[in-house]
Amino acid sequence: MDELKKRLTKFRDDRDWRQFHTPENLAKSITIEAAELLEHFQWDGTFNKDEVSDELADVMSYCLLMADVLDIDLEGAIHQKIDKNEIKYPADQCKGSSKKYTEYKKKSASS
Amino acid sequence: MDELKKRLTKFRDDRDWRQFHTPENLAKSITIEAAELLEHFQWDGTFNKDEVSDELADVMSYCLLMADVLDIDLEGAIHQKIDKNEIKYPADQCKGSSKKYTEYKKKSASS
Amino acid sequence: MDELKKRLTKFRDDRDWRQFHTPENLAKSITIEAAELLEHFQWDGTFNKDEVSDELADVMSYCLLMADVLDIDLEGAIHQKIDKNEIKYPADQCKGSSKKYTEYKKKSASS
Amino acid sequence: MDELKKRLTKFRDDRDWRQFHTPENLAKSITIEAAELLEHFQWDGTFNKDEVSDELADVMSYCLLMADVLDIDLEGAIHQKIDKNEIKYPADQCKGSSKKYTEYKKKSASS
Repeated sequence: MDELKKRLTKFRDDRDWRQFHTPENLAKSITIEAAELLEHFQWDGTFNKDEVSDELADVMSYCLLMADVLDIDLEGAIHQKIDKNEIKYPADQCKGSSKKYTEYKKKSASS
Repeated sequence: MDELKKRLTKFRDDRDWRQFHTPENLAKSITIEAAELLEHFQWDGTFNKDEVSDELADVMSYCLLMADVLDIDLEGAIHQKIDKNEIKYPADQCKGSSKKYTEYKKKSASS
Repeated sequence: MDELKKRLTKFRDDRDWRQFHTPENLAKSITIEAAELLEHFQWDGTFNKDEVSDELADVMSYCLLMADVLDIDLEGAIHQKIDKNEIKYPADQCKGSSKKYTEYKKKSASS
Repeated sequence: MDELKKRLTKFRDDRDWRQFHTPENLAKSITIEAAELLEHFQWDGTFNKDEVSDELADVMSYCLLMADVLDIDLEGAIHQKIDKNEIKYPADQCKGSSKKYTEYKKKSASS
């Protein structure tokens, strides 16, 4: 992850683009790229893996660039999130059907 | 990244949630989480770094889970994307002003 | 609004596209078009009004098509929403600064 | 549509919120609300029509508020868009299967 971040920030700085990478602009960019990814699943179940892979790389790249700008330890943040989710969604209670899953997700979102 | 993916897929499988993680559902989830991240920048320039960090972790988690489901080598995909972008945006030509940046981005998006 | 909906559904049916317009696919489409609108505001404050107008029309069109498919009375739904918001955000209490606005919005989102 | 816009702008102005309604902030808001709508279709085919109706009203409200701020004639913009699409997607050529539909959409997006 660190190596990727280094290459991405070098790419950015070689073009003098750091000035446009405010946290807000990067949040917009992550959303825009996520929707481009979603576009591959807009109408039916067929998709091209290489194209999807490319879009996923775009989302991830902006995530890494945002982590750089805000000095966020992404790996730590993800571990922390899983820690929280292990408490929020106890394995024995929410194992199973889609209905339970959705209800759990809903309950947690509104709590 | 591999370690994170392992922990995320274990969390998913302990809850029997793999069945809901179709590529399409994950693409929706990435977009939904990206918009939640964007919500922290909706009205003004103030935001809470811990909350932003948490949302960014959510986006990244679903990206890693999608890479798992589709068997995508994310690091490779990002490197490949940077390779392409180095050709698409030559450093000496698109260095500088926001206008040039936007135009370059637009031109490339439409080509 | 009714006239627009008529023209949009005629356009759809002339092409036999109703079959792809599941509520879910339309929800994806609204999000995808919204992100295309957002793209015009990705990096700086400049935008082209005609292009923005075009994207806004796309978002609205899919909203009208979703209302058609789910038989939703959109005007009624919007009036109902304003009714709710008039209670949720009393004018005398949330008038004013951006901070109050954001706090109000946040409080209401989490309640 | 005009009556709705009047009520929405009155609601906004009674709270002195016009100042936060820059075109950019409204574009973000439309995207955020669209993703909240999408959330109702995140994992499975079940959804609550009243909740969906409510979210759709939110997306539409911000669209109307954006049209107000930018002085866009929404009805005209939608008619214009349908005019364009009638040329872009000739009924006799793109009638039919999902595959044809997706290809048409893709072709047009990249042209």
